[in-house]
Amino acid sequence: MRATVMHAAGDVRIETVPDATLAEPTDAVVRVTRACICGSDLWPYASLEPTETGQRMGHEAIGVVEELGAEVGTLKAGDVVVMPFAFSDGTCVFCHEGLHTACVHGGFFGAGGNVDGAQAEALRVPQADGTLFALPVGEDDALMPALLTLSDVLGTGHHAAVVGKVGPGKSVAVVGDGAVGLCGVIAAKRLGAEQIIIMGHHPDRIALAKEFGATDVVSERGEEAVERVHELTRGFGVHSVLECVGLEQSTLTAISIARPGGAVGRVGVPQDETMPASLPAFYNNVTVGGGPAPVRAYIEELLPDILEGRIEPGRVFDRTVGLDAVPEGYRAMADRESIKVIVTP
Amino acid sequence: MRATVMHAAGDVRIETVPDATLAEPTDAVVRVTRACICGSDLWPYASLEPTETGQRMGHEAIGVVEELGAEVGTLKAGDVVVMPFAFSDGTCVFCHEGLHTACVHGGFFGAGGNVDGAQAEALRVPQADGTLFALPVGEDDALMPALLTLSDVLGTGHHAAVVGKVGPGKSVAVVGDGAVGLCGVIAAKRLGAEQIIIMGHHPDRIALAKEFGATDVVSERGEEAVERVHELTRGFGVHSVLECVGLEQSTLTAISIARPGGAVGRVGVPQDETMPASLPAFYNNVTVGGGPAPVRAYIEELLPDILEGRIEPGRVFDRTVGLDAVPEGYRAMADRESIKVIVTP
Repeated sequence: MRATVMHAAGDVRIETVPDATLAEPTDAVVRVTRACICGSDLWPYASLEPTETGQRMGHEAIGVVEELGAEVGTLKAGDVVVMPFAFSDGTCVFCHEGLHTACVHGGFFGAGGNVDGAQAEALRVPQADGTLFALPVGEDDALMPALLTLSDVLGTGHHAAVVGKVGPGKSVAVVGDGAVGLCGVIAAKRLGAEQIIIMGHHPDRIALAKEFGATDVVSERGEEAVERVHELTRGFGVHSVLECVGLEQSTLTAISIARPGGAVGRVGVPQDETMPASLPAFYNNVTVGGGPAPVRAYIEELLPDILEGRIEPGRVFDRTVGLDAVPEGYRAMADRESIKVIVTP
Repeated sequence: MRATVMHAAGDVRIETVPDATLAEPTDAVVRVTRACICGSDLWPYASLEPTETGQRMGHEAIGVVEELGAEVGTLKAGDVVVMPFAFSDGTCVFCHEGLHTACVHGGFFGAGGNVDGAQAEALRVPQADGTLFALPVGEDDALMPALLTLSDVLGTGHHAAVVGKVGPGKSVAVVGDGAVGLCGVIAAKRLGAEQIIIMGHHPDRIALAKEFGATDVVSERGEEAVERVHELTRGFGVHSVLECVGLEQSTLTAISIARPGGAVGRVGVPQDETMPASLPAFYNNVTVGGGPAPVRAYIEELLPDILEGRIEPGRVFDRTVGLDAVPEGYRAMADRESIKVIVTP
């Protein structure tokens, strides 16, 4: 079969690899019908050291169950399933607490190691019972792009909003206008936020953010951005900040625009060992939380809104490529030509 | 009148200063019957640059109302009152949210500026209606030491526990065995924690922590301390960490011992601009919050437990000095001879 392999920064190839097979009795093999390229894939695309064997890429997918291990009890061949970016057993203490990304038998797809990536014709899914969610649609349903966001970006934006304590009447700022930030706008609106400030400077993304429910736009950066948010919030700052970038500067901005007692939900993968603005966070009693989103936990809650058309997260995709054009998809996203690229293997 | 003035690191003097008087119609003048020295006073005691006029010290007091401004409506002369370390109007949006330390008309005692300190015969209290809490006891009640902790350390330990999401059945670690850490143990026990690990290495304080409800002791430091907490918690770490020190190392430890999805409540005043362990906090979805405790908000909840003897936070005081011996009190606390010193002006 064919799969996406990254060999070094900027070096993404489509290669023939051994077919995906069952390895554990709790595994499934899934034929991928839709995958996508993630903003977080751009970090190794920018910085991966040359590797000997390459790293299989991709952690978001919808597909069809082809084979099931002997111990998988809740799925059957032919099921159309969405695959969250992390696998999890669904039964451990952390899964029970809704933090599937801390599952004691869990891990991440397309992150190296012996679990492969989803930008491929097929892949092995560990802990299939806990990981996969069977969708009540056919494999070519028109809602596929929206449903695919359940594998990562919608659940991730939602996680930022949950950790950021978004609720009815709250003021919210979303730092970053990538696909996750845009899904953060959807999530904030969905949870009842009154004011949603999108912080970014790409006109196409800003336009989409407004359609998703953003009420204000701040395109300045740094100190100026902080001032502008304060102007928009009676000088107080916002109740909730969704940090969807992960850089030192964006984190500093996020903490600086939170009002006293506010909360920052971080979902942008941090690129630094230390966090800035420890003192302002402390003196303002600002809470900083977040991390890899337990998107598996959120599917039940978010799915009906997609199926019934109340939210349209599929609009974050603005390009579709076949497997051969995945390298071009990486380039387009890295060059900010594309918000998010869907892959049809 | 006489008051405590710090002129530089290590240089604490008792001086004759102008009598406290009303300045605003919302002020009260309070004759101080009990004050104390705070762990946070030890930061300037260690590092204050020499000043021209000196800084009035002290932010915790119980006293008797002597004079009231024309606009003060809820107090009368002769009331025995507890004074939180921050003043607040009690009516602004942040006070209504229970975050009195962010009051739009608020500020801090004994922190420089034009608001004086409580290690004195008397002081002016701004925003008296919102700030002062009248106690249902006489000025020499035997519970005075316990009641005095409502001005800071008990409410601060409680804040760490609240932000750290302590609740019934939870595992808790308290980083730091000073007066705030000890009150954190009281707070964790009071909120129903099942396991309370005190982290410190002063035998007298550890003994008191155990009497307050600590179930385990970790006296190691750094990596070893982190390992030990993991051993005590089935390898997971604790649900809740109360960070009661404020140093980089203690914050690193606090984040490192939180279990995935756990929460760190910071109340130790941070001594660094950046926070360590941003990546572990992120990958474990650990929330870090806290700051200056809105102790005014907590008095109603905590007072009955003191009056009815269910908690004994007054035991954190192990020395009493008159005003003249306040400099000796600072020395004793800085040298860890004393946990916390009460001052009877």
